[in-house]
Amino acid sequence: MENKQTEISTLGEFGLIDRLTRDFPLKNESSHKGIGDDAAVLGFGDKEALVTTDLLLEGIHFDLRYVPLKHLGYKAAVVNFSDIYAMNGTPKQITVSLGVSSRFTVEHIEELYAGIRLACEVYGVDLVGGDTSASVTGLVISITCLGEAAKEDIVYRSGAKPTDLICVSGDLGAAYMGLQLLERENRVAAGAEPGFQPDFSGKEYILERQLKPEARKDIVKMLAENGIKPTSMMDVSDGLSSELLHICKSSDVGCRVYEDRIPIDYQTAVMAEEFNMNLVTAAMNGGEDYELLFTVPLADNEKIEKLKGVTMIGYVTKPELGAAMVTRDGGELPIRAQGWNAFADNSAAPASSAADDAVPQADSTDVEK
Amino acid sequence: MENKQTEISTLGEFGLIDRLTRDFPLKNESSHKGIGDDAAVLGFGDKEALVTTDLLLEGIHFDLRYVPLKHLGYKAAVVNFSDIYAMNGTPKQITVSLGVSSRFTVEHIEELYAGIRLACEVYGVDLVGGDTSASVTGLVISITCLGEAAKEDIVYRSGAKPTDLICVSGDLGAAYMGLQLLERENRVAAGAEPGFQPDFSGKEYILERQLKPEARKDIVKMLAENGIKPTSMMDVSDGLSSELLHICKSSDVGCRVYEDRIPIDYQTAVMAEEFNMNLVTAAMNGGEDYELLFTVPLADNEKIEKLKGVTMIGYVTKPELGAAMVTRDGGELPIRAQGWNAFADNSAAPASSAADDAVPQADSTDVEK
Repeated sequence: MENKQTEISTLGEFGLIDRLTRDFPLKNESSHKGIGDDAAVLGFGDKEALVTTDLLLEGIHFDLRYVPLKHLGYKAAVVNFSDIYAMNGTPKQITVSLGVSSRFTVEHIEELYAGIRLACEVYGVDLVGGDTSASVTGLVISITCLGEAAKEDIVYRSGAKPTDLICVSGDLGAAYMGLQLLERENRVAAGAEPGFQPDFSGKEYILERQLKPEARKDIVKMLAENGIKPTSMMDVSDGLSSELLHICKSSDVGCRVYEDRIPIDYQTAVMAEEFNMNLVTAAMNGGEDYELLFTVPLADNEKIEKLKGVTMIGYVTKPELGAAMVTRDGGELPIRAQGWNAFADNSAAPASSAADDAVPQADSTDVEK
Repeated sequence: MENKQTEISTLGEFGLIDRLTRDFPLKNESSHKGIGDDAAVLGFGDKEALVTTDLLLEGIHFDLRYVPLKHLGYKAAVVNFSDIYAMNGTPKQITVSLGVSSRFTVEHIEELYAGIRLACEVYGVDLVGGDTSASVTGLVISITCLGEAAKEDIVYRSGAKPTDLICVSGDLGAAYMGLQLLERENRVAAGAEPGFQPDFSGKEYILERQLKPEARKDIVKMLAENGIKPTSMMDVSDGLSSELLHICKSSDVGCRVYEDRIPIDYQTAVMAEEFNMNLVTAAMNGGEDYELLFTVPLADNEKIEKLKGVTMIGYVTKPELGAAMVTRDGGELPIRAQGWNAFADNSAAPASSAADDAVPQADSTDVEK
């Protein structure tokens, strides 16, 4: 990487867009026309088009003191892909709109785009449009993703039925613990000698989960290969508690999940211990896991048990039973969403408070009487 | 309108989204599934899907001291529709993402959505998704619009051929003059007695062009009804000079436009006089007109002459002749884009400087030797 820094004003808006988008050749047959006109042109033939969008704001959704721009670009794209996979679809195109304040140089924005480009390459997605403008304060990233799926393949949140099994891919809470670690090291670094280097050895996994999450394309593929079509599905972005309640509401059902079945990685557990946090709270409400939460008919029990990287965590009930967690001692605690509540007191929030807004307090619990 | 004000934090993100989106019934056959899942589902059958996106930032693109929130919502939607019409398509769906700081109440955001809803009703568009989150400072609006068109109907910027006629709908420069007027009255009001009311009588047209622009759906329809398919087309958002250069670049052509053919409304001319501004500069570079700029084969000359609200302003040339304006005295001045350059010195820009960033200085000219 070179260190040359170019004021964005020297390129102008169109020059910047040209420079940022020249390395995105179109890959998909359905991408008929990409950047360079009033709108992109997409041809979906007999497929259904899926569309999802995410807005990421500096100081709310990310903190550039510990998130490298390339990682941020990668993540900003991947979280949109994750929404398309969560419909059992395939992401095909994205548009990227940026608001950029003058403290950013062209090289900064190129780093961000390098991450977006990498994500597009890894997931086979085309960049087809966008918009770049100035911002008074900070960085604003708005990404819209188009995807496609055959009509009969689409999985909604609304299809869960009583007795269905509730499954989740991968493990939960690691991204949240990664964020806790980054924030702590950032506080330490602020008061440290020049040249201070945080020691992240043995914590690579939780850092990667926070900084460079992946969308579970592999799980969608594996389910299809094994002849499993989920009855409902969504990705875990706000936290498992919140997502379970979404599925219960959309499907008009209740659920029971078992505390001792929530999949948690070893590094996540170690960090929770170090931070003196409730581990299950972190796993249930931490968010940003981008795992897939889905339900399957009870009859798929054996098929699911054979799948690597998928855990059955509970079952769907009639709606009147509500949503609850079965604790290790056999008790039941109602599930409450305590994930993301970005509207609570954001006015006074400094840039570093993204995590404080995004997650529950360390001493709170995801379940309560 | 009631005056009750609700803190957004009392509703939470999902409560706010529910409240904002409950009055948007789906209207289009292609809107298979709207808000409430990871992604909207759109079915385009044999049509091409078009997608465009715009990001609007407070302090850069709008100033809430003189832009009512309902108007802002209307405009934010309409400018996206305009991009779809500029492809000779029909807008069908939008997603709306908002970043909202805590100085906004639920009622504020409902006003904004009332404008979006009105625009959706007027243009027959469905709201199918979005995202709402907190913002550290100010209001952020990101809208993505999906549209459709038969493949053979789509008009790109790249199809202009030498000898084609250059046409523009409506008149130019009015939105810019409306902005100048609003900014002046805002400065006056700041130093005035309580109860001061600006007098906008006789200036309604230029104000409406700034505050509540329309997309030229009617022009697209009229062209189709008269059997005219433009060879190239785009909407005038950054200013005629900038858009002419886009078409010249995309089509690899040059152009000549006649100074005395640029359509300008009487109120625009009066205001330019009042502000001691170059009228043609304002019309060529003011931007935000959302008129359609298009080219047609010379053979369509007679058809075009019969159309109300369309002006032939010049013709397409070979690329080596460049882009130039033919002045009243018969001279030629190269056309230069002096529209929107939002990256020039935005860091120090107060919220009120949107216009200063967006438009040329009053004493500059759009054309130069």
